[in-house]
Formats: sequence, structure tokens, C-alpha cells
Amino acid sequence: MAQRLDFYFFVGSTYSYVSVSRAAKAAATAGVTLNWKPFSVRTLMREQNNSPFAGKPVKMAYMWRDLERRAARFGVPFDGVPPYPIDPLEQANRVATLASTQDWCPAFVQAAYEAWFIGKLDPGSPEHLRGILQGLGRDADACMAEADSEPVVAMYAERTNEARTLGIFGSPSYVAGTEVFWGDDRLEDALAWASGT
Amino acid sequence: MAQRLDFYFFVGSTYSYVSVSRAAKAAATAGVTLNWKPFSVRTLMREQNNSPFAGKPVKMAYMWRDLERRAARFGVPFDGVPPYPIDPLEQANRVATLASTQDWCPAFVQAAYEAWFIGKLDPGSPEHLRGILQGLGRDADACMAEADSEPVVAMYAERTNEARTLGIFGSPSYVAGTEVFWGDDRLEDALAWASGT
Repeated sequence: MAQRLDFYFFVGSTYSYVSVSRAAKAAATAGVTLNWKPFSVRTLMREQNNSPFAGKPVKMAYMWRDLERRAARFGVPFDGVPPYPIDPLEQANRVATLASTQDWCPAFVQAAYEAWFIGKLDPGSPEHLRGILQGLGRDADACMAEADSEPVVAMYAERTNEARTLGIFGSPSYVAGTEVFWGDDRLEDALAWASGT
Repeated sequence: MAQRLDFYFFVGSTYSYVSVSRAAKAAATAGVTLNWKPFSVRTLMREQNNSPFAGKPVKMAYMWRDLERRAARFGVPFDGVPPYPIDPLEQANRVATLASTQDWCPAFVQAAYEAWFIGKLDPGSPEHLRGILQGLGRDADACMAEADSEPVVAMYAERTNEARTLGIFGSPSYVAGTEVFWGDDRLEDALAWASGT
């Protein structure tokens, strides 16, 4: 049986761009099932007084440069700094949550990140969200309405609560059992842990 | 000519323990000269409103666990969480600065981290600092007096200023030319950059 790795992420996390682009393939290569779990890292950051970049221009400048280097290393397109922050109402994240109950979460999240990093658009704005969903052949209005429905809102809150309970504080976080690995740069460690190698 | 990598660190940074234990050997293997530069990351963190762990117990708990895993991976001894924070007056860091003008900075800093992580002692307290220096065959009182002298204090401030100018915000940071790599987990990337491979 394939081992499982839970992939907790937030559409709006910068480093998660590299993870969203490469984690599925890396997991498949390692024989690990990747379980995509959108959650509200913003809620946890607020609770934990852990704001990684807001009001920290020196660290923020480093992050963009480091992200650019990591994107180049993994062959992920990077064409300058995109808008930041994004998705203020977390609607793109609720759509990702809806998608995770079906089979199109990776496709949606990858398209959302492409719109953000390459298109330089906020994938959480209704206009751009609609375009992304249509590009995936989805009924955009139906998806957006369902993403705001009580069951999806509750699932997003429950995923956030799971993350809180696990001791997660940032995105991306990979979880094998109860072992947490934070950051795109811990993907290989997390896969090794999950697969017992 | 060997390529150079500047190693900016603060005795008191937790992840720097792994770097202090492994960077010299990794650099030698890569044919890179490692230039040890103690600086006051605490000063920059205060200026930049960037407190990585204080008041953030969830992130702090993760850090200790992640550090334990990284120590195991690199064969660095880890025997539970040591006292934290340490060196409130930064005297161990000024002794490291003095040592960096001579040839015993790596030996001193490694001994200071061993006292901290294995001995569970604050290497910045005068009592323990004296023991560390004596263990290295140094005249402890003379070293401690010289570490507080104007030239060493000025050099420590100057290193801190260099780090500020480079856009450094954390310890360890590796710098190749003006390219900054933050974190023990960026050592390999920094060595590759420095050696042009």
C-alpha cells in the first residue's frame, strides 16, 4: 500500500508555489500518495502572532530572491515578483477545498498559482477566479457558490483546526503521521519519512 | 585560488549549531574557504521587528524538533533542548569576534556550542566562558578583557553593519559575493554558488 503524505497549503503562500509545482511528481516518484489539504494559514498566523513578511521588508526581499533561485533550480517559471498578498477573502482557498472533495484540487491550485505568478493576477478575485475555473472546464458560478456553502466553509475550518492541532504554523507543511515538516525545502525529508526510507 | 564563502553567525542561534558543526568540513570538501564572521543578529532582529521564536511557542516547538532531526541527519549530537535564549550580554560573541582576528574562531565557537547543547550551559556566562577558554588552553581573563576592548567591540559592530548592508536578517547566513543564503539548509546551495558549480 502506498504511504500517505498530507500536504497542508494555503493559496497565497509564496514558497508554496514551488511545492504546488513539484510535490505531486516527487511524491509519485517516491511511491507516496499526496493528500492535498488547503487550510487557512492566515488564521493560524494571526492566532500565533507569526507574521513572516508583513512589516519585515528585509526578510521579504530575501524571500523573493530565494524563491526565484529555488524556482530556477526546479525548473518552475518565475518572472518577477507577483502581487502580494492575495486572496483577502480566502475564496480561492475555499474553491481549492471544494476541489479537494472531488478530483481537481491539484489542477485548480496549479492553475491558480500560474495565474498569480505568471499572469500577475490575484486568483482570489471573483473575476480571475471565474477565468481560472472556466479554463478548467468548470461551471464557475456553480463552483464559486458551492465554495461559499456551509459544508465547504466547515471543511475549510476543520482542515485549519487539524493543522492547528498538529502544531502547524506555516505553509507549505507536510505531515507524515504526526511528524510535521515545514517548507518546500523539507519535501524530500517528508517523503523519506512517509516512505520509511 | 579557493573561492570564499562568508559565514555570518551568532552564538545563540539554534540552527547555527548544526552549521557550526558541519560547515567547515563541507566547505573544505567543496574547495571553498569559509570565513567565520560573528555578528549581532539580535540587533538586526530588533531593528527589523523580526523575532523568530519569542512569543511563538508553536513555531518554537517545531524548531527544536526540526533541529533534532537535522542534527541526527548530520551526525551532530543532540540530547534534548538546551537553555534558551543565551548570552544576553553577547560576550561569547565578542570572544568569537576576537578569535576571528586570530586562528581559533572555529575551535572556540564549536566548544561554545558543545557547552550549550551538550553541557546545557550558557556559554556567555563569565563562569562558563572562562571554562571554555581554559579548555582551549587560552588565558581566559586576558581573552575576556580583550573581547570587551574598544577594537573588538568596534569590529563586532562593523560585522553587524556589514550584515545589515547585505540584507541579512537571520543566523546562519552564508554570503558569496553579495548573494545571501539564509539557514543551515542553504549551506549546499551557498557552496555551489561560491564554487561556481
